[in-house]
Amino acid sequence: MGGHRAQQKEKTRRTIIDAAFRLLNQERSYSSLSLREVTREAGIAPTSFYRHFEDMEELGLTLVDEGGVALRQLMRKARQRIRDQGSVIQTSVETFMEFIQSSPHVFRLLLRERSGTSLAFRKAVSRELQYFVVELADYIQHTQGYPAEEARVQAEAMVILVFNACAEALDCKPAERKLLTEKSIRQLRFVARGADEFLKGRH
Amino acid sequence: MGGHRAQQKEKTRRTIIDAAFRLLNQERSYSSLSLREVTREAGIAPTSFYRHFEDMEELGLTLVDEGGVALRQLMRKARQRIRDQGSVIQTSVETFMEFIQSSPHVFRLLLRERSGTSLAFRKAVSRELQYFVVELADYIQHTQGYPAEEARVQAEAMVILVFNACAEALDCKPAERKLLTEKSIRQLRFVARGADEFLKGRH
Repeated sequence: MGGHRAQQKEKTRRTIIDAAFRLLNQERSYSSLSLREVTREAGIAPTSFYRHFEDMEELGLTLVDEGGVALRQLMRKARQRIRDQGSVIQTSVETFMEFIQSSPHVFRLLLRERSGTSLAFRKAVSRELQYFVVELADYIQHTQGYPAEEARVQAEAMVILVFNACAEALDCKPAERKLLTEKSIRQLRFVARGADEFLKGRH
Repeated sequence: MGGHRAQQKEKTRRTIIDAAFRLLNQERSYSSLSLREVTREAGIAPTSFYRHFEDMEELGLTLVDEGGVALRQLMRKARQRIRDQGSVIQTSVETFMEFIQSSPHVFRLLLRERSGTSLAFRKAVSRELQYFVVELADYIQHTQGYPAEEARVQAEAMVILVFNACAEALDCKPAERKLLTEKSIRQLRFVARGADEFLKGRH
Protein backbone atom coordinates (compact mmCIF):
# COMPACT_ATOMS: atom_id res chain seq x y z
CA MET A 1 0.00 0.00 0.00
CA GLY A 2 2.88 2.37 0.85
CA GLY A 3 4.44 1.68 -2.55
CA HIS A 4 1.21 2.40 -4.32
CA ARG A 5 0.79 5.66 -2.48
CA ALA A 6 4.32 6.74 -3.28
CA GLN A 7 3.64 5.91 -6.92
CA GLN A 8 0.45 7.96 -6.87
CA LYS A 9 2.31 10.87 -5.31
CA GLU A 10 5.01 10.73 -7.98
CA LYS A 11 2.31 10.67 -10.65
CA THR A 12 0.65 13.84 -9.32
CA ARG A 13 4.03 15.53 -9.06
CA ARG A 14 4.64 14.68 -12.72
CA THR A 15 1.19 16.07 -13.63
CA ILE A 16 2.07 19.40 -11.99
CA ILE A 17 5.42 19.61 -13.79
CA ASP A 18 3.85 18.81 -17.16
CA ALA A 19 1.07 21.35 -16.58
CA ALA A 20 3.59 24.11 -15.81
CA PHE A 21 5.57 23.27 -18.96
CA ARG A 22 2.38 23.39 -21.06
CA LEU A 23 1.59 26.88 -19.78
CA LEU A 24 4.97 28.28 -20.83
CA ASN A 25 4.99 29.65 -24.35
CA GLN A 26 6.23 32.65 -26.32
CA GLU A 27 4.06 35.09 -24.42
CA ARG A 28 4.23 33.64 -20.89
CA SER A 29 7.27 33.62 -18.67
CA TYR A 30 7.53 31.43 -15.60
CA SER A 31 7.33 34.40 -13.22
CA SER A 32 3.92 35.30 -14.66
CA LEU A 33 2.41 31.90 -13.79
CA SER A 34 0.35 31.63 -10.62
CA LEU A 35 0.03 28.58 -8.39
CA ARG A 36 -3.72 28.59 -8.98
CA GLU A 37 -3.26 28.48 -12.74
CA VAL A 38 -0.80 25.60 -12.59
CA THR A 39 -3.03 23.49 -10.33
CA ARG A 40 -6.07 24.23 -12.50
CA GLU A 41 -4.15 23.08 -15.59
CA ALA A 42 -3.03 19.98 -13.67
CA GLY A 43 -6.59 19.26 -12.52
CA ILE A 44 -5.79 19.23 -8.78
CA ALA A 45 -6.82 21.38 -5.82
CA PRO A 46 -4.53 24.38 -5.11
CA THR A 47 -3.84 23.13 -1.57
CA SER A 48 -2.55 19.77 -2.91
CA PHE A 49 0.31 21.67 -4.54
CA TYR A 50 2.12 21.96 -1.22
CA ARG A 51 2.34 18.21 -0.79
CA HIS A 52 4.74 18.24 -3.75
CA PHE A 53 6.51 21.59 -3.78
CA GLU A 54 7.26 24.16 -1.13
CA ASP A 55 6.39 27.06 -3.41
CA MET A 56 6.39 28.19 -7.05
CA GLU A 57 10.14 28.80 -6.89
CA GLU A 58 10.82 25.17 -6.02
CA LEU A 59 8.62 24.04 -8.90
CA GLY A 60 10.46 26.45 -11.23
CA LEU A 61 13.87 25.15 -10.20
CA THR A 62 12.58 21.62 -10.80
CA LEU A 63 11.60 22.63 -14.34
CA VAL A 64 15.08 24.02 -14.94
CA ASP A 65 16.60 20.75 -13.68
CA GLU A 66 14.33 18.69 -15.89
CA GLY A 67 15.10 20.85 -18.91
CA GLY A 68 18.82 20.47 -18.32
CA VAL A 69 18.53 16.70 -17.89
CA ALA A 70 16.51 16.33 -21.10
CA LEU A 71 19.08 18.31 -23.04
CA ARG A 72 21.99 16.36 -21.56
CA GLN A 73 20.39 13.03 -22.43
CA LEU A 74 20.01 14.20 -25.98
CA MET A 75 23.66 15.25 -26.12
CA ARG A 76 24.69 11.87 -24.83
CA LYS A 77 22.88 10.30 -27.76
CA ALA A 78 24.64 12.80 -29.98
CA ARG A 79 28.01 11.57 -28.74
CA GLN A 80 26.97 8.10 -29.85
CA ARG A 81 26.26 9.51 -33.30
CA ILE A 82 29.65 11.24 -33.28
CA ARG A 83 31.42 7.94 -32.60
CA ASP A 84 29.54 6.41 -35.52
CA GLN A 85 29.87 9.21 -38.05
CA GLY A 86 32.58 11.67 -37.26
CA SER A 87 31.92 15.42 -37.12
CA VAL A 88 31.62 16.59 -33.50
CA ILE A 89 30.69 20.12 -34.35
CA GLN A 90 28.06 19.40 -36.96
CA THR A 91 26.39 16.66 -34.90
CA SER A 92 26.32 18.77 -31.73
CA VAL A 93 24.82 21.81 -33.41
CA GLU A 94 22.21 19.72 -35.21
CA THR A 95 21.28 17.93 -31.99
CA PHE A 96 20.73 21.24 -30.18
CA MET A 97 18.56 22.45 -33.06
CA GLU A 98 16.48 19.27 -32.95
CA PHE A 99 15.92 19.83 -29.26
CA ILE A 100 14.50 23.32 -29.69
CA GLN A 101 12.24 22.01 -32.44
CA SER A 102 10.88 19.17 -30.30
CA SER A 103 10.87 21.01 -26.93
CA PRO A 104 10.76 24.77 -27.56
CA HIS A 105 9.09 25.42 -24.19
CA VAL A 106 11.91 23.71 -22.28
CA PHE A 107 14.58 25.66 -24.14
CA ARG A 108 12.65 28.90 -23.74
CA LEU A 109 12.51 28.39 -19.97
CA LEU A 110 16.29 27.91 -19.75
CA LEU A 111 16.91 30.88 -22.01
CA ARG A 112 14.62 33.26 -20.16
CA GLU A 113 15.56 32.35 -16.62
CA ARG A 114 19.20 32.62 -17.55
CA SER A 115 18.79 36.39 -17.56
CA GLY A 116 15.72 36.57 -15.35
CA THR A 117 15.07 38.43 -12.12
CA SER A 118 15.62 35.46 -9.82
CA LEU A 119 19.21 34.80 -8.73
CA ALA A 120 18.32 31.19 -7.78
CA PHE A 121 17.03 30.58 -11.34
CA ARG A 122 19.98 32.31 -12.98
CA LYS A 123 22.35 30.12 -10.98
CA ALA A 124 20.42 26.95 -11.84
CA VAL A 125 20.56 27.64 -15.57
CA SER A 126 24.20 28.66 -15.40
CA ARG A 127 24.95 25.34 -13.65
CA GLU A 128 23.20 23.42 -16.46
CA LEU A 129 25.30 25.23 -19.05
CA GLN A 130 28.43 24.48 -17.04
CA TYR A 131 27.67 20.74 -17.27
CA PHE A 132 27.85 21.06 -21.04
CA VAL A 133 31.04 23.05 -20.90
CA VAL A 134 32.68 20.50 -18.59
CA GLU A 135 31.62 17.54 -20.74
CA LEU A 136 32.74 19.18 -23.96
CA ALA A 137 36.03 20.37 -22.40
CA ASP A 138 36.67 16.84 -21.24
CA TYR A 139 36.05 15.53 -24.73
CA ILE A 140 38.36 18.14 -26.32
CA GLN A 141 41.06 17.50 -23.73
CA HIS A 142 41.05 13.76 -24.33
CA THR A 143 40.57 13.55 -28.06
CA GLN A 144 42.91 16.42 -28.92
CA GLY A 145 45.35 16.46 -26.05
CA TYR A 146 44.66 20.07 -25.03
CA PRO A 147 45.64 21.43 -21.62
CA ALA A 148 42.55 21.49 -19.34
CA GLU A 149 42.36 25.28 -19.10
CA GLU A 150 42.61 25.77 -22.88
CA ALA A 151 39.99 23.10 -23.50
CA ARG A 152 37.64 24.80 -21.09
CA VAL A 153 37.91 28.27 -22.63
CA GLN A 154 37.32 26.74 -26.06
CA ALA A 155 34.39 24.57 -24.90
CA GLU A 156 32.73 27.52 -23.24
CA ALA A 157 32.91 29.65 -26.37
CA MET A 158 31.35 26.82 -28.33
CA VAL A 159 28.49 26.23 -25.90
CA ILE A 160 27.67 29.95 -25.81
CA LEU A 161 27.61 30.20 -29.60
CA VAL A 162 25.32 27.18 -29.98
CA PHE A 163 23.02 28.31 -27.19
CA ASN A 164 22.67 31.71 -28.85
CA ALA A 165 22.00 30.26 -32.28
CA CYS A 166 19.24 28.18 -30.70
CA ALA A 167 17.79 31.27 -29.04
CA GLU A 168 17.68 32.97 -32.41
CA ALA A 169 16.17 29.88 -34.01
CA LEU A 170 13.16 29.98 -31.64
CA ASP A 171 11.70 32.93 -33.56
CA CYS A 172 12.63 31.50 -36.98
CA LYS A 173 11.02 29.66 -39.87
CA PRO A 174 12.43 26.20 -40.78
CA ALA A 175 14.32 27.55 -43.83
CA GLU A 176 16.03 30.22 -41.74
CA ARG A 177 16.86 27.59 -39.14
CA LYS A 178 18.88 25.69 -41.67
CA LEU A 179 20.93 28.81 -42.44
CA LEU A 180 21.39 29.43 -38.73
CA THR A 181 22.63 25.88 -38.23
CA GLU A 182 25.19 26.32 -41.00
CA LYS A 183 26.35 29.67 -39.63
CA SER A 184 26.68 28.22 -36.15
CA ILE A 185 28.77 25.31 -37.48
CA ARG A 186 31.12 27.76 -39.19
CA GLN A 187 31.50 29.83 -36.03
CA LEU A 188 32.37 26.75 -33.98
CA ARG A 189 34.90 25.72 -36.58
CA PHE A 190 36.53 29.15 -36.33
CA VAL A 191 36.86 28.64 -32.58
CA ALA A 192 38.24 25.10 -32.92
CA ARG A 193 40.69 26.08 -35.62
CA GLY A 194 41.82 29.23 -33.80
CA ALA A 195 42.38 27.35 -30.54
CA ASP A 196 44.37 24.79 -32.45
CA GLU A 197 46.62 27.42 -34.03
CA PHE A 198 47.27 29.08 -30.67
CA LEU A 199 48.26 25.76 -29.20
CA LYS A 200 50.59 24.93 -32.07
CA GLY A 201 52.16 28.37 -31.75
CA ARG A 202 53.09 27.57 -28.18
CA HIS A 203 55.14 24.48 -29.02
CA MET B 1 6.67 80.39 -26.17
CA GLY B 2 6.23 77.34 -28.44
CA GLY B 3 9.94 76.61 -28.16
CA HIS B 4 9.84 76.81 -24.41
CA ARG B 5 6.88 74.48 -24.24
CA ALA B 6 8.58 71.95 -26.51
CA GLN B 7 11.64 72.15 -24.26
CA GLN B 8 9.51 71.57 -21.19
CA LYS B 9 7.84 68.59 -22.84
CA GLU B 10 11.21 67.07 -23.76
CA LYS B 11 12.36 67.57 -20.17
CA THR B 12 9.38 65.68 -18.74
CA ARG B 13 9.87 62.91 -21.28
CA ARG B 14 13.49 62.61 -20.13
CA THR B 15 12.32 62.50 -16.48
CA ILE B 16 10.03 59.56 -17.28
CA ILE B 17 12.79 57.66 -19.10
CA ASP B 18 15.26 58.21 -16.25
CA ALA B 19 12.68 57.16 -13.66
CA ALA B 20 12.00 53.90 -15.51
CA PHE B 21 15.74 53.15 -15.74
CA ARG B 22 16.14 53.80 -12.00
CA LEU B 23 13.40 51.27 -11.19
CA LEU B 24 15.10 48.49 -13.14
CA ASN B 25 17.48 46.44 -11.05
CA GLN B 26 18.44 42.85 -10.38
CA GLU B 27 15.05 41.94 -8.97
CA ARG B 28 12.77 43.96 -11.27
CA SER B 29 12.17 43.31 -14.93
CA TYR B 30 10.58 45.87 -17.22
CA SER B 31 7.40 43.85 -17.59
CA SER B 32 6.86 44.01 -13.82
CA LEU B 33 6.83 47.84 -13.79
CA SER B 34 3.47 49.60 -13.74
CA LEU B 35 2.67 52.95 -15.32
CA ARG B 36 1.65 54.25 -11.90
CA GLU B 37 5.00 53.32 -10.39
CA VAL B 38 6.98 54.99 -13.15
CA THR B 39 5.02 58.24 -12.95
CA ARG B 40 5.31 58.24 -9.15
CA GLU B 41 9.09 57.84 -9.43
CA ALA B 42 9.14 60.61 -12.05
CA GLY B 43 7.02 62.88 -9.85
CA ILE B 44 4.27 63.46 -12.42
CA ALA B 45 0.55 62.60 -12.58
CA PRO B 46 -0.27 59.21 -14.17
CA THR B 47 -2.44 60.87 -16.83
CA SER B 48 0.48 63.06 -17.99
CA PHE B 49 2.25 59.89 -19.09
CA TYR B 50 0.11 59.69 -22.22
CA ARG B 51 1.28 63.06 -23.47
CA HIS B 52 4.71 61.43 -23.95
CA PHE B 53 4.16 57.73 -24.64
CA GLU B 54 1.27 55.77 -26.04
CA ASP B 55 1.71 52.99 -23.48
CA MET B 56 4.29 51.15 -21.37
CA GLU B 57 5.43 49.19 -24.42
CA GLU B 58 6.36 52.37 -26.27
CA LEU B 59 8.32 53.58 -23.23
CA GLY B 60 10.07 50.19 -23.01
CA LEU B 61 11.09 50.27 -26.66
CA THR B 62 12.43 53.79 -26.10
CA LEU B 63 14.58 52.47 -23.23
CA VAL B 64 15.94 49.73 -25.49
CA ASP B 65 16.78 52.36 -28.16
CA GLU B 66 18.49 54.58 -25.60
CA GLY B 67 20.47 51.67 -24.23
CA GLY B 68 21.63 50.70 -27.68
CA VAL B 69 22.62 54.27 -28.54
CA ALA B 70 24.60 54.66 -25.29
CA LEU B 71 26.48 51.44 -25.97
CA ARG B 72 27.19 52.41 -29.59
CA GLN B 73 28.54 55.81 -28.59
CA LEU B 74 30.88 54.11 -26.18
CA MET B 75 32.06 51.71 -28.88
CA ARG B 76 32.71 54.64 -31.20
CA LYS B 77 35.01 56.08 -28.54
CA ALA B 78 36.61 52.65 -28.29
CA ARG B 79 37.42 52.74 -31.99
CA GLN B 80 39.24 56.00 -31.37
CA ARG B 81 41.27 54.24 -28.67
CA ILE B 82 41.95 51.38 -31.09
CA ARG B 83 43.38 53.78 -33.66
CA ASP B 84 45.65 55.22 -30.97
CA GLN B 85 46.79 52.00 -29.31
CA GLY B 86 46.27 48.93 -31.42
CA SER B 87 44.46 45.89 -30.06
CA VAL B 88 40.88 45.79 -31.41
CA ILE B 89 39.84 42.80 -29.37
CA GLN B 90 41.20 43.89 -26.02
CA THR B 91 39.89 47.44 -26.33
CA SER B 92 36.42 46.29 -27.42
CA VAL B 93 36.03 43.78 -24.60
CA GLU B 94 37.27 46.25 -22.00
CA THR B 95 34.91 48.92 -23.29
CA PHE B 96 31.92 46.59 -23.01
CA MET B 97 32.96 45.70 -19.47
CA GLU B 98 33.26 49.38 -18.52
CA PHE B 99 29.75 49.91 -19.83
CA ILE B 100 28.19 47.25 -17.62
CA GLN B 101 30.06 48.68 -14.66
CA SER B 102 28.82 52.23 -15.26
CA SER B 103 25.32 51.33 -16.56
CA PRO B 104 24.35 47.88 -15.30
CA HIS B 105 20.62 48.71 -15.48
CA VAL B 106 20.84 49.57 -19.18
CA PHE B 107 22.71 46.39 -20.01
CA ARG B 108 20.37 44.31 -17.87
CA LEU B 109 17.38 45.68 -19.80
CA LEU B 110 18.92 44.70 -23.14
CA LEU B 111 19.89 41.29 -21.82
CA ARG B 112 16.50 40.46 -20.35
CA GLU B 113 14.30 41.72 -23.12
CA ARG B 114 16.43 39.87 -25.63
CA SER B 115 14.82 36.65 -24.42
CA GLY B 116 11.66 38.18 -22.96
CA THR B 117 8.01 37.48 -23.66
CA SER B 118 7.46 40.46 -25.97
CA LEU B 119 8.29 39.91 -29.65
CA ALA B 120 8.54 43.69 -30.19
CA PHE B 121 11.20 43.92 -27.46
CA ARG B 122 13.09 40.87 -28.68
CA LYS B 123 13.23 42.38 -32.16
CA ALA B 124 14.38 45.76 -30.84
CA VAL B 125 17.28 44.23 -28.87
CA SER B 126 18.22 41.97 -31.74
CA ARG B 127 18.35 45.04 -34.01
CA GLU B 128 20.70 46.80 -31.56
CA LEU B 129 23.02 43.78 -31.56
CA GLN B 130 22.90 43.71 -35.36
CA TYR B 131 24.23 47.29 -35.47
CA PHE B 132 27.32 46.08 -33.62
CA VAL B 133 27.72 43.11 -35.88
CA VAL B 134 27.45 45.28 -39.00
CA GLU B 135 29.95 47.86 -37.71
CA LEU B 136 32.44 45.22 -36.60
CA ALA B 137 32.02 43.23 -39.85
CA ASP B 138 32.67 46.42 -41.79
CA TYR B 139 35.82 47.03 -39.78
CA ILE B 140 37.07 43.45 -40.30
CA GLN B 141 36.26 43.57 -43.99
CA HIS B 142 38.20 46.78 -44.54
CA THR B 143 41.17 46.30 -42.27
CA GLN B 144 41.72 42.65 -43.13
CA GLY B 145 40.30 42.31 -46.62
CA TYR B 146 37.80 39.59 -45.74
CA PRO B 147 34.84 38.76 -47.99
CA ALA B 148 31.69 40.41 -46.58
CA GLU B 149 29.95 37.15 -45.68
CA GLU B 150 32.99 35.76 -43.84
CA ALA B 151 33.47 39.01 -41.94
CA ARG B 152 29.87 38.96 -40.84
CA VAL B 153 29.93 35.40 -39.49
CA GLN B 154 33.12 36.22 -37.59
CA ALA B 155 31.82 39.54 -36.25
CA GLU B 156 28.62 37.93 -35.04
CA ALA B 157 30.47 35.23 -33.12
CA MET B 158 32.56 37.93 -31.46
CA VAL B 159 29.61 40.12 -30.47
CA ILE B 160 27.76 37.12 -28.99
CA LEU B 161 30.78 36.06 -26.95
CA VAL B 162 31.35 39.56 -25.53
CA PHE B 163 27.66 40.07 -24.81
CA ASN B 164 27.57 36.79 -22.89
CA ALA B 165 30.71 37.56 -20.92
CA CYS B 166 29.08 40.85 -19.90
CA ALA B 167 25.92 39.03 -18.86
CA GLU B 168 28.02 36.78 -16.65
CA ALA B 169 29.92 39.77 -15.28
CA LEU B 170 26.69 41.36 -13.99
CA ASP B 171 26.56 38.85 -11.13
CA CYS B 172 30.32 39.01 -10.47
CA LYS B 173 32.77 40.64 -8.09
CA PRO B 174 35.44 42.98 -9.57
CA ALA B 175 38.21 40.34 -9.27
CA GLU B 176 36.13 37.76 -11.14
CA ARG B 177 35.33 40.39 -13.76
CA LYS B 178 38.99 40.74 -14.57
CA LEU B 179 39.25 36.98 -15.17
CA LEU B 180 36.11 37.09 -17.30
CA THR B 181 37.57 39.90 -19.39
CA GLU B 182 40.74 37.90 -19.99
CA LYS B 183 38.79 34.77 -20.89
CA SER B 184 36.60 36.71 -23.28
CA ILE B 185 39.66 38.21 -24.99
CA ARG B 186 41.10 34.74 -25.51
CA GLN B 187 37.84 33.45 -26.97
CA LEU B 188 37.67 36.33 -29.43
CA ARG B 189 41.26 35.68 -30.43
CA PHE B 190 40.39 32.05 -31.13
CA VAL B 191 37.62 33.21 -33.44
CA ALA B 192 39.81 35.77 -35.22
CA ARG B 193 42.66 33.33 -35.65
CA GLY B 194 40.41 30.51 -36.79
CA ALA B 195 38.64 32.69 -39.35
CA ASP B 196 42.02 33.78 -40.61
CA GLU B 197 43.22 30.21 -41.06
CA PHE B 198 40.06 29.23 -42.94
CA LEU B 199 40.53 32.16 -45.27
CA LYS B 200 44.18 31.32 -45.91
CA GLY B 201 43.18 27.70 -46.58
CA ARG B 202 40.92 28.87 -49.36
CA HIS B 203 43.65 30.61 -51.36
